[in-house]
Amino acid sequence: MLTCSRSVLILILVLLTPLSLFAPAQQGTRERVDLLVRGGIVITMDQNARVIEDGAVAVRGGRIVAVGQSASVDATYVADAEIDARGKAVIPGLINGHTHVPMTLFRGLADDLDLNEWLTKYIFPAEAKNVTEDFVRVGTRLALAEMIRGGTTTFCDMYYFENAVAEETAKAGVRGVLGETVIDFPVPDNKTYAEGLAYTERFIKRWQGHRLVTPAVAPHAPYTVSEEHLRAAHALANRTNAPLIIHVAETRKEVEDITKAKGVRPIEYLARIGFLNQRTIAAHVVHITDEEIAILKRYGVGVVHNPQSNMKLASGVAPVPQMLAADLAIGLGTDGAASNNDLNLWEEIDTVAKLHKVFSGNPRAIPARAAFEMATARGARALHMEGEIGSLETGKRADLVIVDMDRLHQTPRYDIYSQLVYATKAADVRTVIIEGRVVMRDGRLLTLNEEEVRQQAQSFRERIARSVSQKD
Amino acid sequence: MLTCSRSVLILILVLLTPLSLFAPAQQGTRERVDLLVRGGIVITMDQNARVIEDGAVAVRGGRIVAVGQSASVDATYVADAEIDARGKAVIPGLINGHTHVPMTLFRGLADDLDLNEWLTKYIFPAEAKNVTEDFVRVGTRLALAEMIRGGTTTFCDMYYFENAVAEETAKAGVRGVLGETVIDFPVPDNKTYAEGLAYTERFIKRWQGHRLVTPAVAPHAPYTVSEEHLRAAHALANRTNAPLIIHVAETRKEVEDITKAKGVRPIEYLARIGFLNQRTIAAHVVHITDEEIAILKRYGVGVVHNPQSNMKLASGVAPVPQMLAADLAIGLGTDGAASNNDLNLWEEIDTVAKLHKVFSGNPRAIPARAAFEMATARGARALHMEGEIGSLETGKRADLVIVDMDRLHQTPRYDIYSQLVYATKAADVRTVIIEGRVVMRDGRLLTLNEEEVRQQAQSFRERIARSVSQKD
Repeated sequence: MLTCSRSVLILILVLLTPLSLFAPAQQGTRERVDLLVRGGIVITMDQNARVIEDGAVAVRGGRIVAVGQSASVDATYVADAEIDARGKAVIPGLINGHTHVPMTLFRGLADDLDLNEWLTKYIFPAEAKNVTEDFVRVGTRLALAEMIRGGTTTFCDMYYFENAVAEETAKAGVRGVLGETVIDFPVPDNKTYAEGLAYTERFIKRWQGHRLVTPAVAPHAPYTVSEEHLRAAHALANRTNAPLIIHVAETRKEVEDITKAKGVRPIEYLARIGFLNQRTIAAHVVHITDEEIAILKRYGVGVVHNPQSNMKLASGVAPVPQMLAADLAIGLGTDGAASNNDLNLWEEIDTVAKLHKVFSGNPRAIPARAAFEMATARGARALHMEGEIGSLETGKRADLVIVDMDRLHQTPRYDIYSQLVYATKAADVRTVIIEGRVVMRDGRLLTLNEEEVRQQAQSFRERIARSVSQKD
Repeated sequence: MLTCSRSVLILILVLLTPLSLFAPAQQGTRERVDLLVRGGIVITMDQNARVIEDGAVAVRGGRIVAVGQSASVDATYVADAEIDARGKAVIPGLINGHTHVPMTLFRGLADDLDLNEWLTKYIFPAEAKNVTEDFVRVGTRLALAEMIRGGTTTFCDMYYFENAVAEETAKAGVRGVLGETVIDFPVPDNKTYAEGLAYTERFIKRWQGHRLVTPAVAPHAPYTVSEEHLRAAHALANRTNAPLIIHVAETRKEVEDITKAKGVRPIEYLARIGFLNQRTIAAHVVHITDEEIAILKRYGVGVVHNPQSNMKLASGVAPVPQMLAADLAIGLGTDGAASNNDLNLWEEIDTVAKLHKVFSGNPRAIPARAAFEMATARGARALHMEGEIGSLETGKRADLVIVDMDRLHQTPRYDIYSQLVYATKAADVRTVIIEGRVVMRDGRLLTLNEEEVRQQAQSFRERIARSVSQKD
């Protein structure tokens, strides 16, 4: 070896030289990827808020391997499949941070009522009489189809028969953070809190590590679950390293009741019993003080704001500008379709931007980009998934949505965020990709049979309507 | 004759007997109509709020000649053309009570700004540099196309080159109450207030009596038009029997300024100078007292509420529940697309129902039907056109819209008003008929070339964008 010639040494050096030094030669050796989405306006929602005109996203193994100019991505990658996004926007999949998908079957069952009357006279009786595993599957499929159509790729859910929700979600290829609701009264699938928590433990064991489904622990609310039971839920979440979802500070009455019973406000109470941590996801959070905002920030809690549900049920207006000023991890949710009445994130984005302007008297309160961020990058933080979703960046899950940008109501276009937030509708979504898999292509659902989903949902209508009109 | 036989007498009696006694024989003598829309769920919005499952509407000469069960209308009428509305809703055409259609070309040009900065730094300069007759025609066509797509059949507009707006509106077959904005500073087509008023007089002469276009007098606002000029506008409206449109009480600042200058609040001021009557249409009306509500009621003024514009510009929340309690003639408007950013009445209906619930703390504040009425029957009253439009009733203009009711986001259906208000979107509109003429059939525009409209609008983009980025 010591006697090898100079030419052999040169050959060895050449072989060791990285390919990148021979850029023009690279064309023939482009890396193979599964899918290339090219030619669109790529709204990355990354930390620099990069917007790439004529951009491309390369996907392999369910993850994003490159985001950049179409020309430069083309030079590096060759794909098994391509999607032409010219003239369209390519955005991160939208994140619905709080919902109850099976309740979609109750859409419009009872509206314009006081929260208490709505719950006790309609929703609770309707649930007691109708919620079966079959109901949950049909309602979940209806919700999944509606969410995919509107460009939602991740949702956070709490309901009953959550194992059925998870199975349907995985089958449809949608991403979910899912928790069985545990509560201090009998529910359709669990007669006691202990049974509910045991169900949750089995549920977590079954789903943890799944590419799409993240199982969670989901005690209903501080006013429906005892302190002991909240502590038990928290312990289970700690032991399993699972997200911990809860409704909190939704109504003024809840704040009054908790303050009376516990001597402190709901967020303070949850902090005191050790419930808050970096896996907690708090839904609603309407009636809170500056001190409670500081607590949420200190513990790294994720918050999900549901503007349209809070409006329709007259729950109140959350101090969202203040929460954003504190850089809280705050996302957007639709809540269940029974209190909204749809699962349309675009309307929540539009509403969050407008509602807080008029409520604060400040037309700059939540600008378009900040509103859009709540349904994407900041929404991912609210679910503690910012490492995986919420932006189009190399290494993240390939959840992306292609949206028409040239419809009448989007013409002309000056600012891309303004157009996305104030003018774009769910019906403008064309193609949806989750974990690298195309689940809707050019308006056609690929993982669900839309006609069957609708017929099955409609078939529950009669029974449900009868169940709330009858006295029992 | 006196000797005629008994059989001849019987024959005469039979001939004199009304045909209705021989129902089966009537089929051969059915009345001919131009158009029959049949099989849909007809939401009449008449005084009894009749909803007819499997209903039909018969149209002749641009007017509704019958509304009823499909079977009974079939028995009486035979049509040259039929539209099958099975499984769909048939509703009165929606009424956009306040907008500035050419401003659609400014959609998203400048958002999330203080009203003053928005107007003085962006909108006024953009108008000064861009608004020509051609601009107005292109912007109007874009707006008309978007409005037809969303089921709006009547709109009330104030802008410049309103004669061009009227020509485009008539050509597209849409109904409009249209007024040239007159204001105390030079505008693109009129250098003085006097010129503006003279333009208006010619405009009224040209269009009055047109089937679709109702010409109006449109002084901008109490803070931009002097008392003398407001009186002159009012006198012209009186002399010509034309509607009188004005912006009023939109912002807190306006109320302060008028109160300071005139010693009374804006509505009181307009009452004092004799401006208010049964042809007045007052847009916005956000900051008003109970006494001012009583004044509006006493004079029979029409009011147009613009919830999304008021939210986005942080103008304030109008006391709509109180105005409804006083049974004011209050409708809904989108305002211009520069402050909304679309011309989508469905979102205004959804928003008006939700906004006033949370703002009043009362989830019953504006129920679904009341919200829908604001865009139909009550909206017609706001424009003083309740004898002509706003409901599906015999004798009214044949402005009707056929809407999908079986989309995913509308499934299942329990209550038709809930579904229309909280779940239905502009994109669900299938067919639009104005004055008996089909202007959109199954999603295809028939009176406007959509592709051309979009291209022409987009061609204005560069120049407009440049005009606000340059310092002059």
